[in-house]
Amino acid sequence: MSDAAKAIWAELKAQPQRTLTELFDDGDRVGKLSGRIEWSGDDTPGEQGGEWTAGIQFDWSKTHLDDQLLSLFEKLADAMDFTGKRAAMFGGETINNTEGRAATHSAQRGVGTDADVEEAMALHARMKMLVEAVHDGALGNVKRLIHVGIGGSALGPALAIDALTRDLAKVDVHVVSNIDGVALEQAFATCDPKTTMIAVASKTFTTIETMTNAASAIKWLEDNGVDDPSGRVVALTASPEKAVEWGVDETRILPFKETVGGRYSLWSSIGFPVALAIGWEEFEEFLAGAQAVDRHFQEKDGRANLPLRAAFADLYYARIRGCQTRAVFAYDERLGLLPDYLQQLEMESNGKSVTSGGDPVDGPTAPITWGGVGTDAQHAVFQLLHQGTHLVPVDFIASIAPGDDLDPAHHRILLTNCFAQGAALMAGKESDDGARNFTGNRPSATMLCDDLDAATLGALIAFHEHRTFANAMLMGINPFDQFGVELGKEMAKGIEAGGQSFDASTEALLEAAGVRC
Amino acid sequence: MSDAAKAIWAELKAQPQRTLTELFDDGDRVGKLSGRIEWSGDDTPGEQGGEWTAGIQFDWSKTHLDDQLLSLFEKLADAMDFTGKRAAMFGGETINNTEGRAATHSAQRGVGTDADVEEAMALHARMKMLVEAVHDGALGNVKRLIHVGIGGSALGPALAIDALTRDLAKVDVHVVSNIDGVALEQAFATCDPKTTMIAVASKTFTTIETMTNAASAIKWLEDNGVDDPSGRVVALTASPEKAVEWGVDETRILPFKETVGGRYSLWSSIGFPVALAIGWEEFEEFLAGAQAVDRHFQEKDGRANLPLRAAFADLYYARIRGCQTRAVFAYDERLGLLPDYLQQLEMESNGKSVTSGGDPVDGPTAPITWGGVGTDAQHAVFQLLHQGTHLVPVDFIASIAPGDDLDPAHHRILLTNCFAQGAALMAGKESDDGARNFTGNRPSATMLCDDLDAATLGALIAFHEHRTFANAMLMGINPFDQFGVELGKEMAKGIEAGGQSFDASTEALLEAAGVRC
Repeated sequence: MSDAAKAIWAELKAQPQRTLTELFDDGDRVGKLSGRIEWSGDDTPGEQGGEWTAGIQFDWSKTHLDDQLLSLFEKLADAMDFTGKRAAMFGGETINNTEGRAATHSAQRGVGTDADVEEAMALHARMKMLVEAVHDGALGNVKRLIHVGIGGSALGPALAIDALTRDLAKVDVHVVSNIDGVALEQAFATCDPKTTMIAVASKTFTTIETMTNAASAIKWLEDNGVDDPSGRVVALTASPEKAVEWGVDETRILPFKETVGGRYSLWSSIGFPVALAIGWEEFEEFLAGAQAVDRHFQEKDGRANLPLRAAFADLYYARIRGCQTRAVFAYDERLGLLPDYLQQLEMESNGKSVTSGGDPVDGPTAPITWGGVGTDAQHAVFQLLHQGTHLVPVDFIASIAPGDDLDPAHHRILLTNCFAQGAALMAGKESDDGARNFTGNRPSATMLCDDLDAATLGALIAFHEHRTFANAMLMGINPFDQFGVELGKEMAKGIEAGGQSFDASTEALLEAAGVRC
Repeated sequence: MSDAAKAIWAELKAQPQRTLTELFDDGDRVGKLSGRIEWSGDDTPGEQGGEWTAGIQFDWSKTHLDDQLLSLFEKLADAMDFTGKRAAMFGGETINNTEGRAATHSAQRGVGTDADVEEAMALHARMKMLVEAVHDGALGNVKRLIHVGIGGSALGPALAIDALTRDLAKVDVHVVSNIDGVALEQAFATCDPKTTMIAVASKTFTTIETMTNAASAIKWLEDNGVDDPSGRVVALTASPEKAVEWGVDETRILPFKETVGGRYSLWSSIGFPVALAIGWEEFEEFLAGAQAVDRHFQEKDGRANLPLRAAFADLYYARIRGCQTRAVFAYDERLGLLPDYLQQLEMESNGKSVTSGGDPVDGPTAPITWGGVGTDAQHAVFQLLHQGTHLVPVDFIASIAPGDDLDPAHHRILLTNCFAQGAALMAGKESDDGARNFTGNRPSATMLCDDLDAATLGALIAFHEHRTFANAMLMGINPFDQFGVELGKEMAKGIEAGGQSFDASTEALLEAAGVRC
C-alpha cells in the first residue's frame, strides 16, 4: 500500500465513532445516504403511457458512514487509482494480472470494448438460436433439462431460475453440482429420460465433478433406452475443443470467452439453462438490468457511484470495526439462493492474503458473507444480530411489488418486518434486566426494488459484482484469480493416484473410510 | 466469571501457539484426539449375526488442541460447575432461569426424570397413533402434507425429511415457513387439495407467519372444493388450548411440553411430519440415535465427553484465536440443510451478551455458524478458507456408506476430496509467488459416520445440541432463552398498529413501499 493510502487509513481509523442515533441528528441524513439506480423503456413507442422506469432504491443511512468518512474513502479511491482500474477493466486490459487475462463479463451485457461486445453478441446470437430451437421443438420433445455444473457454472443458473420461474418455466431445469451421486439420482427421480436434455457446463471442460456427473447422466439415458444419448447433450464451455474431444457435436457447443471468469459467467452461455427456462426475451431483460448498473458504475464518481459507496461501507466495517462477516437477508422467498451466490462472488474474489503485486495485504480482506431469507431468519439467527457480541453489518433486500397473489397481508407483513428489523437493530431498547436489554447501534443498509423481475435480478447481481470489484481495487488485490482452490484439488488427485503419504490424521481417515486405492 | 475461571482463561491465553504440523510430532496424536460414539442393536435376537454396532468417529487432531489445552479446559469446566449444570439439565431443574423453565428435550429421547420421560412417551404414543392412522388411510387418501411452521418448528423437519427421504417418502411433505406468499403458493402448485393435509406447527400457536399461512392454506382447501377443510388440519403445539380456540379438533392436536424449547423440539410432536414421511419405526431409530449421544454426554467426563471436547475447540478458537465464525461442510448432499439447522441451534442459543445472571459476558459468545455441502463449497468459498485473512475453524462431516447407487467413483471422489481439504488446510504449500502461496496451519475436525441413517442423523443433531449446551455452560450463559427476537417483532406490530413514528430512514422506507397503515 502506498504511503498516501496508509495515511488515509490512519485518518479513517482516527475518526470519532458516533452512534447511529447521533448521526441521525443530521435531518438530511436519509437523503444524503440514499441513492437510486434506474432503467427505463417504452413498451409502445409513440404512444403516451408506454414509457416506464424501474429501479432499486438504496439506503445506507443506518450505517455509520457520514460525510467525513465518505470524503476519506473518496480520497482512498483516488489514492488507489480506482477510476484508472475501472477504465482498465471496461477497456479490456489485463486486469487479472496473475492469470494474464482481461475480465470481460460486462461485455456480455454490452459494456466493454467494441471487439469484446461484438464477440459476445455473436455468441449470444448462437445461444439464442439453440434456445429457440429447443422451444420450437426442433430438438424433439424437451420438457426438462439436467444442468450439470459446479461453482460458477451452477450457482448463477440456480439462483436465476429459482428467482424467476416460480410461476412457470418453459423448460424445468434441475441443477446438479455435487459429485455425491445422491444429487444426480434426485434429478433422475423426477425426469423422464425420453424428454430430458443434458447441459454440461464447465469452463475448462475438465472439472472432475461435472465430467463424472455428465458421464453418469449419459449412461442413465442409455440405460433407459434413449437412442443417441450424446445427441441430447449441450456443452457450455470456454474450451470448445475439449467438448468436441469428449464427444459433443459442434452444433450443440455454446462457447464463451476465457476472459469471462467462472463466478462472472452467468451472462454468457452458462446462462443457457436460464434462457431456456425463462425464454430469450426475458433473458435479454436480465442482461439489460445488469447493463444499467454497468453504465452507472462506469459513469458516476465518488459516493455517487453506488457500488463504490457500498464498498466504502464494507471496508469501514471490515477494516475499522473488525467485522469478520457481513450478512444479507432478502425479504423475498425468490432470493433464497442469493446468499450462496454472493458467498462465492465475494469470498472467492476477495478472500486473498496478497495484493495484486504478490505482497502481503495490509489488513483483512473479504469478510465471510452469510445470510438467509426473511422472515425465516428472524426466527433463527436474528437473536445473535440483536444481542450477540459480534457486530455484523446487514443488508436487507426487498421488493415493493409482491411476488404472490394471496391476501395482501402476506406481503405487507413481510415488508413491515423487514423495515422493523433495521429500525430495531439501530434503536435498541434499554432494560435493567440484562437478558432483555438491546444495545442498538447495529448497522444495516436496505435495497428496495420496485419489483423483482428479470431486469432487477440482473441489476442486483451486477451491483454486487461491481461492489466486489470496488472492494478489491481499494484493497489493491486481484479479484479475478482463485489459486486457493488448487491445493485441495491437487491433494485429492494425489490420493486418487496412490503412492503418496499424508499426515497421520488423513491416513487414518482414508483407512477408516476404505477409500485408499 | 469467578476469579478461578478468569485465572484459567489467562493461562489458556498464555499457552504457546504451536503449528498443527508441530503438534503432529506427537506420534500418538490421532489416537489421543479421536473418539467414537456408538450405538448397537440386535436385529434377530438369539441368532448369530443379528448383532450390530454403528457410530460416528470424531477426529480433532487437526485442531490446535493439545494435552495442556485440554487439561486447562477441563479445569475450566470444573470451575464453571459443568457436571453440576449437566445434572441440573437432565434432572429437570429450572436451568432456563430467565424464563423459569426446565429444558427437557432429552426426555423426548428417553433421558431425563422419570416423570418427564413418562409424559414424553405418552405424547409420543398419541403421535404414533395419528401417524399410523394417516398411513392406514383412516383420514382419507393423504398423499401430501403442507407443514406450516417457522424457525424451530420448520428447520428440524426440513432437515430430517431432506436427509432421510431421498429414496422414498411415505407422505410427501412441503415445509412452508415464510410469510412471503410465494412460499405457500409454491407448495400449492405441487399439491392436490383433495389429497393434502395441513400441519400447523407453533409452540405458542400465535406466531404471525404461521397463523397467516395456516389461514391461507385452509382458504385454498375451501376454494378448491374441499368439504370441512379444518378437518384436514393437525396442530403441533405447546398451547393446545389456543389450537382448540383456533378451531382444530382436539383429536388432531399433538401437544408438547413448554419445557421443550423451539429449537430443540424436533423430537416432540414438531417431528410429526418427519414421522409421517419416514414411518414410525424409523422415527424411533432417530430418537434412539439421539439417546445414544445423551447417554454418552451424561456419563463421560472431561475430554472423554465428546460434545464437551468439541466445545473446548469452539471456545479455543472463539476466545483465544478471535474467530468470529465457525464453518461446517457436510460432504453429503443429504445434509444440505444442516448448516441452516446449526445456525439456529448455535446462534439463537448462544448469541448472547449477558451471563445467566444478567451480567455482561467476559468475552465473545457464539460465533457465526456458516457452511455448505462438499464438494460444491470447494468451488465457491474454499478460496477464502485456504488463502483469506480470517482464520475459520472447519468441521467436515461425511458418511462411509454411500447414499447413492451410481458408479462407486462418485462416493470415492466425494470422500477423497473431503479428506484432501482437511489435509491441505493443515499442510499448506509454500510458494515464492504470493498468489500461489498457502500458509497452512488452518484447523479442521472431521466427523465420519458409518452410515447416514435415521439413528445417525439423530445422533449428529443431539451431539450438536449438547455441544451448544457445553459451550453455554463454560461461558456461563443461558442457551435456552431468546429475548433478542422480541424487539423486532414488537416494532413490526407497532408499524402494523399505526400511530407510532420511527427513525427517518424507516419512515422513508415505509412510505416508498406504500405499506404504512
